[in-house]
Amino acid sequence: LAVSGRRLRVAILGAGTVGREVVRAFLETPARLQPADGSPLELAGVAVRDIARATAAGIPARLLTDAPAHLVGAQDVDIVVELMGGEEPARTLVAAALDAGRPVVTANKRLLARHGPSLEAIARRAESPLRFEATVAGGVPILAPLASDLGANAVTRVRGIVNGTTNFILSAMAHAGRSYGEALAAAQAAGYAEADPAADVEGQDAIEKLVILARLAFGAWLPPEAIPNQTTDDDGAAGPPGIIGVTAADIVAARAAGRTIKLLATAAPAGGVPGSIAARVVATAVPVDSPLGRTSGVLNRIEIDARPVGQVAFEGPGAGGAATSSAVIGDLIAIARGLGSTWAGLPEAGRGRVVAAEHEAYLVGPSGARYPVVD
Amino acid sequence: LAVSGRRLRVAILGAGTVGREVVRAFLETPARLQPADGSPLELAGVAVRDIARATAAGIPARLLTDAPAHLVGAQDVDIVVELMGGEEPARTLVAAALDAGRPVVTANKRLLARHGPSLEAIARRAESPLRFEATVAGGVPILAPLASDLGANAVTRVRGIVNGTTNFILSAMAHAGRSYGEALAAAQAAGYAEADPAADVEGQDAIEKLVILARLAFGAWLPPEAIPNQTTDDDGAAGPPGIIGVTAADIVAARAAGRTIKLLATAAPAGGVPGSIAARVVATAVPVDSPLGRTSGVLNRIEIDARPVGQVAFEGPGAGGAATSSAVIGDLIAIARGLGSTWAGLPEAGRGRVVAAEHEAYLVGPSGARYPVVD
Repeated sequence: LAVSGRRLRVAILGAGTVGREVVRAFLETPARLQPADGSPLELAGVAVRDIARATAAGIPARLLTDAPAHLVGAQDVDIVVELMGGEEPARTLVAAALDAGRPVVTANKRLLARHGPSLEAIARRAESPLRFEATVAGGVPILAPLASDLGANAVTRVRGIVNGTTNFILSAMAHAGRSYGEALAAAQAAGYAEADPAADVEGQDAIEKLVILARLAFGAWLPPEAIPNQTTDDDGAAGPPGIIGVTAADIVAARAAGRTIKLLATAAPAGGVPGSIAARVVATAVPVDSPLGRTSGVLNRIEIDARPVGQVAFEGPGAGGAATSSAVIGDLIAIARGLGSTWAGLPEAGRGRVVAAEHEAYLVGPSGARYPVVD
Repeated sequence: LAVSGRRLRVAILGAGTVGREVVRAFLETPARLQPADGSPLELAGVAVRDIARATAAGIPARLLTDAPAHLVGAQDVDIVVELMGGEEPARTLVAAALDAGRPVVTANKRLLARHGPSLEAIARRAESPLRFEATVAGGVPILAPLASDLGANAVTRVRGIVNGTTNFILSAMAHAGRSYGEALAAAQAAGYAEADPAADVEGQDAIEKLVILARLAFGAWLPPEAIPNQTTDDDGAAGPPGIIGVTAADIVAARAAGRTIKLLATAAPAGGVPGSIAARVVATAVPVDSPLGRTSGVLNRIEIDARPVGQVAFEGPGAGGAATSSAVIGDLIAIARGLGSTWAGLPEAGRGRVVAAEHEAYLVGPSGARYPVVD
């Protein structure tokens, strides 16, 4: 994709909360989509499932289609933005676009986490940029800074609160003394949790984000199904996944020990074997007064430990259409400027292996649940 | 500067705490200076004032020279890294390198803040990249993310704790009940404050960093001498600059009001006039329980408010040779990858104008000092 004065035409697949905000940026602030040292961007079309609904939401009918595959393959489309979510048809459409030499921007963490190795292979073979800043921590710039600005560091640990839904629930339990069920209902009422909250509360969403962070931090694609979302007791019996076993009494007990419970995603190289990563996403007892302990509500916080930089941390809104659209638009501009893939500058990733974390202390709650204790 | 397989030879000017760490990276981890999609970097030479001292510090004699101008002009040098600090001879050397088409990486905040407009003009005219991530918040990636990942946002405010020395002093006063003089002496003993601490404690260092942040956030170079480092009372009389008027009693009084005193650098567009920025660096009463209030010791924290992203924050070590070397090396790799200047992607900056902040509430300490109250 040569950088030139020619307009690059952008196809958007999906017009949900994020897609609508990206379309709005094209319609209302087009000057912001013209990088000073790259090609200007313009909107070619928007593929949606329900054209009438998209029109009612304010997207001009002339831009709309319900045939995403046709839009991806259209002669006059230069860049594809995939905001449909889910594995299919997103995977097929993204793979086809990359294979045809078209740059892709996606906010689809599940797609990247589950098909990262094959999509990276296609993108590299076809020399098609693939960018995915929006997949982790919404609008917070974390992936490009990790890959690019911190790219010469040796990362020794990545950890963070990367799921706003569970953090909203745990914050409501800690601050308002609510039960898990009450807090989940409040999150659903506030629009922070889905009707079927399993992917969030059982930790799968955070696992997918951790896979993507680990790709950039450690150069390895971890298999998401190998990342534990539960602790095991001394007999090897697994506790409840994610945060679904956390009780109000557990949080009170943690508080008495100066701690609070957070769903913490952690990955660190292990055993000195390249590609061997100790990774997990489990309810964890963090110091109540630490920056992680004080990360409340739907805020995200990610901490990178690396040499020579030390520890740097990134905070911000981990979700929401407007915030996430910032990352999508940032990626579009990066492509228009010829910056390549999110991993540009880093070597091709191999497949990584998830190993168990080192032995450590646990806080055992009144419910019997075990929470790793970390500082 | 074409990206190719050819090695790019790097001249380093200055081998102080940061320069030594950059040299160490070249000597000890050369593989980290070879971006996957750019030219590999190698060390051409290091200009120092005292060759014997640099040799004693472990830099091989074959790399050393005490003639920086010769090194900058040497036929086989491709990139210049300026780590001398101060205005001259740094300005002359950097301008000469840029003018000759050579990319420059600098950690020199004073140079950028005081000569930004002319250096940007030279860099643009000669098409020589100029990168300066290390000038603000040490190793924390803040400038490139602001210019690049957040580049399509409309920034509505930048604020932060950007001077570790003053924050160490204020933290020691707040937590250990020390007087200003005792805390300053402790900072000097710990190596966090210079023998002549004026540039830090009077706010000039933070003002220079704010000028650089404002360049990227608002597209305007502010004159540093126009940025107030003191509040004025109702009769227009100026209080003491920076933190030198802060007393232990003031901090106790602030604490009683749920606040603590921080040297806060703030810039925000004002009055709807492009380039008119309300900017200041003054001791400020922030909520003691807020992320800014809890930013202790030599940590830096910068908060960016922008549309559509909302608020994102960046934290990390604001100084130190190892941390700062991460930003310098990141910039070198960015140049080797052909990414251009730190401001690449943004329009050329104009000259900005500093205007007074909106009226707001003050906390008046027992010393009589006035601290703006912010949330």
